[in-house]
Amino acid sequence: MRFLLASASSGRLRTLRQAGVEPEVEVSGVDEDALVAPTPAELVQVLAHAKAVAVAARQQGTLLVLGCDSMLELDGFALGKPGSVEEAIARWKSMRGRTAVLHTGHTLIEVLDSSPGRMLDRVASTEVRFAEPSDDEIAAYVDTGEPLRVAGAFTVDGLGGWFVDSIAGDHHNVVGLSLPLLRRMLLDFGYAVTDLPAQPT
Amino acid sequence: MRFLLASASSGRLRTLRQAGVEPEVEVSGVDEDALVAPTPAELVQVLAHAKAVAVAARQQGTLLVLGCDSMLELDGFALGKPGSVEEAIARWKSMRGRTAVLHTGHTLIEVLDSSPGRMLDRVASTEVRFAEPSDDEIAAYVDTGEPLRVAGAFTVDGLGGWFVDSIAGDHHNVVGLSLPLLRRMLLDFGYAVTDLPAQPT
Repeated sequence: MRFLLASASSGRLRTLRQAGVEPEVEVSGVDEDALVAPTPAELVQVLAHAKAVAVAARQQGTLLVLGCDSMLELDGFALGKPGSVEEAIARWKSMRGRTAVLHTGHTLIEVLDSSPGRMLDRVASTEVRFAEPSDDEIAAYVDTGEPLRVAGAFTVDGLGGWFVDSIAGDHHNVVGLSLPLLRRMLLDFGYAVTDLPAQPT
Repeated sequence: MRFLLASASSGRLRTLRQAGVEPEVEVSGVDEDALVAPTPAELVQVLAHAKAVAVAARQQGTLLVLGCDSMLELDGFALGKPGSVEEAIARWKSMRGRTAVLHTGHTLIEVLDSSPGRMLDRVASTEVRFAEPSDDEIAAYVDTGEPLRVAGAFTVDGLGGWFVDSIAGDHHNVVGLSLPLLRRMLLDFGYAVTDLPAQPT
């Protein structure tokens, strides 16, 4: 079965590849700032849905399309990528020692003979407990540029891994795509993980 | 500061590299089957300690040596790598849908002018909740060979990622080396993560 990831995220692509799957990739071009929702968990689902629908609508043939979107929730706010070095530093000073929740929305659409049909929306949420990096550690981390490129200003699988003391939930969901959730969504449609295109070895 | 990983594990090396550190690597040659301890958590610490001590004793110059060892605890037993395809399949049939604990022992030794000096022993434990793969999914997974190469017969960052529903604790500890714990051990010795040799970019 063809499988298309409707996301530009290198973390999501790496997650699928490490798990043995080689997806096609097509970016939706959805204007993410134009969409709103009452809570962070609903917002990521609205965005994932919009991305998957936009990409599925222009496909030919038969395939599965997956859209995803991730945000970090802290104090009720949905935090995407920080806009500047100063914002990344300020965020880390307010995040350290605390627990936040990383939400990822997932929308899976089955396209049959160029027609989008069955569709599933699911959100996974993972608690993230941050370490207490010093001001110097924060400055050195932000100086690497990594926090500016990612939702929530941290990674768990990159340079930020030193500063995440623990998580509760699916690790891959923090990176941006929950593998166990995708497995269950595939099963709901009657597919197995092994039906997806295998990563060349 | 020179930094030497006393382990042959590709997962540990990858964990350090993804976090920006390029360690030297030297395998201890310790006979792991000759060591015993009353609990899985104590056993991984005894093994990590033995590996680090053996490697530190033969170093010249000044450097930090890290030894690690990992086991999965289920029903009070310490599970390392499965010995056969049949054992890997049987293990997965007993693990699915259940929660186990992945323990990793860490020993950090400071070698100054070719003399091992300060030493720290720390164990990190992460709860792992397994999904419920079908018999067919288990057979396909074991057929990839991956479960035979790893402690506990699963990975969370490889093909096994589909079958780990959630964890509670540090993700990297499941792979075999807790980055936030190593950061705190370095701080105890007065070092920062940025004192370690950087991964070439």
